[in-house]
Amino acid sequence: MGRVRMSSRASWVAKPNDSPYYIGSDRASEDPYDRVDNPDGVIQLGLSENRVRFCWVLCKLCFRSGVYVKFDFLIFWVWLQLCLDLIEKWVSENLMESMVGTDGGDLSISGIAAYQPFDGMTELKVAMASFMSQIMGRSVSFDPSQIVLTSGATPAVEILSFCLADHGNAFLVPTPYYPGFDRDMRWRTGVELIPVHCRSTDNFTLNITVLDQAYGQARKRGVKVQGVLISNPSNPVGNLLSREMLCSLLDFAQEKNIHVISDEIFAGSMYGSEEFVSMAEIVDSEDFEKSRVHIIYGLSKDLSIPGFRVGVLYSYNESVLAAAKKLTRFSPISSLTQRLIISMLSDTRFIQEYLQINKKRVKDLYDLFVAGLQQLGINCAKSSAGLYCWADMSGLIRSYGEKGELELWDKLLNIAKINVTPGSACHCIEPGWFRCCFTTLTPEDVPVVIDRIRKVTETIKSSS
Amino acid sequence: MGRVRMSSRASWVAKPNDSPYYIGSDRASEDPYDRVDNPDGVIQLGLSENRVRFCWVLCKLCFRSGVYVKFDFLIFWVWLQLCLDLIEKWVSENLMESMVGTDGGDLSISGIAAYQPFDGMTELKVAMASFMSQIMGRSVSFDPSQIVLTSGATPAVEILSFCLADHGNAFLVPTPYYPGFDRDMRWRTGVELIPVHCRSTDNFTLNITVLDQAYGQARKRGVKVQGVLISNPSNPVGNLLSREMLCSLLDFAQEKNIHVISDEIFAGSMYGSEEFVSMAEIVDSEDFEKSRVHIIYGLSKDLSIPGFRVGVLYSYNESVLAAAKKLTRFSPISSLTQRLIISMLSDTRFIQEYLQINKKRVKDLYDLFVAGLQQLGINCAKSSAGLYCWADMSGLIRSYGEKGELELWDKLLNIAKINVTPGSACHCIEPGWFRCCFTTLTPEDVPVVIDRIRKVTETIKSSS
Repeated sequence: MGRVRMSSRASWVAKPNDSPYYIGSDRASEDPYDRVDNPDGVIQLGLSENRVRFCWVLCKLCFRSGVYVKFDFLIFWVWLQLCLDLIEKWVSENLMESMVGTDGGDLSISGIAAYQPFDGMTELKVAMASFMSQIMGRSVSFDPSQIVLTSGATPAVEILSFCLADHGNAFLVPTPYYPGFDRDMRWRTGVELIPVHCRSTDNFTLNITVLDQAYGQARKRGVKVQGVLISNPSNPVGNLLSREMLCSLLDFAQEKNIHVISDEIFAGSMYGSEEFVSMAEIVDSEDFEKSRVHIIYGLSKDLSIPGFRVGVLYSYNESVLAAAKKLTRFSPISSLTQRLIISMLSDTRFIQEYLQINKKRVKDLYDLFVAGLQQLGINCAKSSAGLYCWADMSGLIRSYGEKGELELWDKLLNIAKINVTPGSACHCIEPGWFRCCFTTLTPEDVPVVIDRIRKVTETIKSSS
Repeated sequence: MGRVRMSSRASWVAKPNDSPYYIGSDRASEDPYDRVDNPDGVIQLGLSENRVRFCWVLCKLCFRSGVYVKFDFLIFWVWLQLCLDLIEKWVSENLMESMVGTDGGDLSISGIAAYQPFDGMTELKVAMASFMSQIMGRSVSFDPSQIVLTSGATPAVEILSFCLADHGNAFLVPTPYYPGFDRDMRWRTGVELIPVHCRSTDNFTLNITVLDQAYGQARKRGVKVQGVLISNPSNPVGNLLSREMLCSLLDFAQEKNIHVISDEIFAGSMYGSEEFVSMAEIVDSEDFEKSRVHIIYGLSKDLSIPGFRVGVLYSYNESVLAAAKKLTRFSPISSLTQRLIISMLSDTRFIQEYLQINKKRVKDLYDLFVAGLQQLGINCAKSSAGLYCWADMSGLIRSYGEKGELELWDKLLNIAKINVTPGSACHCIEPGWFRCCFTTLTPEDVPVVIDRIRKVTETIKSSS
């Protein structure tokens, strides 16, 4: 008799993932770059996290050294407004009041210790619906009763996968797509993802003909396709789906009688002038059967609070909502966090200010980063949103294929010490594209990154 | 073409649960008893929640009316110490400091906004390991590296079920057992639970012979048994498994080469004089293969903070830990909550005081409640822990069987307006037993409950 064994499905989950997406991220975590403490460490451009903090380091140094006391209070105050991370500032000012209530006399912590509905407090759903309307354009309204709250967008994705498809069923997913979908949609559900290839000649925009071909091929293989999963704004490209394309997609879904999941988690992280159109706007204004439409949202990207774990599953399907609400018992948000977020989202002045400043900061950083790449002859796909850009480095790869792409990725990681996500990890059919998440950087980091990439490009050019 | 359909597994999850456990709880939620506002509402004894708050109502009234200002400050202070919910008091005093840190100069919210490891912060694992040692007896030590933190014990249960068994495999579960296991162990995993019947003549203690028979029968049916799931202290009986019984169970598991999951979530909610022995103590001291042992814990019961969603999966199996850590991305705890709990568990003086006062309060309430039932001729099983008692009302049922039991349950719910959990919902083979969660009550509520039950018993006695 051998040692006791775990399930085969858990063994599958536990096995080390050989995707460069995970390998690179692990390397960046183990040896993280720090301007002062670890200047030779790996710079993380593989995680779409918004850490934009202008003159943050300087500000912290001043705090620690006590330099600020030498400044006039007003100057210091203005500086603080510009420098300190906006969310952290809000939390430190509003934490107590969010929990205790404002009447002062009541010491009860608003019932946060007791059991709460697993799918989220009604007050948070109301605040979230209003926030989503603000993010996705004033003309869209979201109904709080169609909201299911989860501990991050990740479980919302998994719950939808479980609810819309049975083991062995499939979703069509236009490429390049976020590498995490392969994990979140599939691990525990046994669902298949079928890549539908988009091309650089279309700026990687969805093509309904190709979608239809992929659908037909899947059916031929005997695979039941249950839906299409898109991200809009696209992750990793950062482009947007037009109103017309969204209508075509819904027409397609109606024809095949399948679902559509629209991941709109970057809807508030816009830097371009293009207008974002939510799937919610289309189903509200056009004559489509709504029950096939489901939207993913969350606060990790647009409010840069991934640590708080606040995700949204928004559905027009009563049965899906009923099942999803029950399943949130496995992915609930702590009541403490819910209370805080209710207060934060209800502070409309703060939210408005935050969104405005954040948009400007992301845009400035995008411009800075993309201009730096351009100096090296690296162009990015046309994009309008996201915390990343989609860079074309195909001119730098030796052999035109996945192998050549991964060789370049390896050089960037091990020589330049920069972790970026290669297109192959996103199922991109054209080699040489890389996702670079620039919002993990401060403006001061950008020249460092560009300089490191330059060294690799120079080596490649000189040896060819 | 019909409307778009969701998956069959989601339809199964979504369908209304006809177990009296859920029906009764829903009734109590829809029409909750309140001494002042809804005196004819349903009294909830179906949810094992610790809401013990002595003279809470009185205290709140005094606050609101401002009566306290007439008292001497010292008297008021002492009263406050006795009356206010301990956890709420601690949170209101320590919330800010937990988040901001104690050095005062650093306005960073300790990095709570950013991504954190999904399986929990190392500091929280260290604090939790130490807290668990305190709860489960000083002689047991827990290794922080064997802890995986989840958003409540519920996802910890599900993750273990997924990791230890494949779809169609089974666990043996001694009865009566917690009705939630049927949901948490089975819904998304497709695992089967096989009830192993324990009897009142043994005070519902596990019997290895019966366990062995159930194992043999399952194998005959072609079902692969992957483990045994116990709760210790038992939910719903409240009794404890002795050191000898735990050893016998591990011998059995070793012989069959299967896993053991020990749910010890009520380990700190002791009111009896018996000594609790954790499975961790056995595997540490005896010569058993550790890799088959897994423990469930959480703070919902012993610290009465279910709203915070803090659960623990503790395993001696490296592979299970590796898979479970990856799966926590679907059930993470908000970093805000983790920070607060780190501070709370590290405040050893508070924790010691809390545990002491809580134990006394639970014991006092247990004595009061059980004595009330005894006045009606209703005896409870011998027990030492838990937030409930296991009451024998078999003398009150008309027909000796599940039908008779459910008739009585219906009368208690609809005439007495008391929601208790019937034994059949816990797979108890003997009819007439009911789980009554008394810690949802204040001492002032106990006579109300007893009086309501008395009316039903009198009707039954007079009509027979």
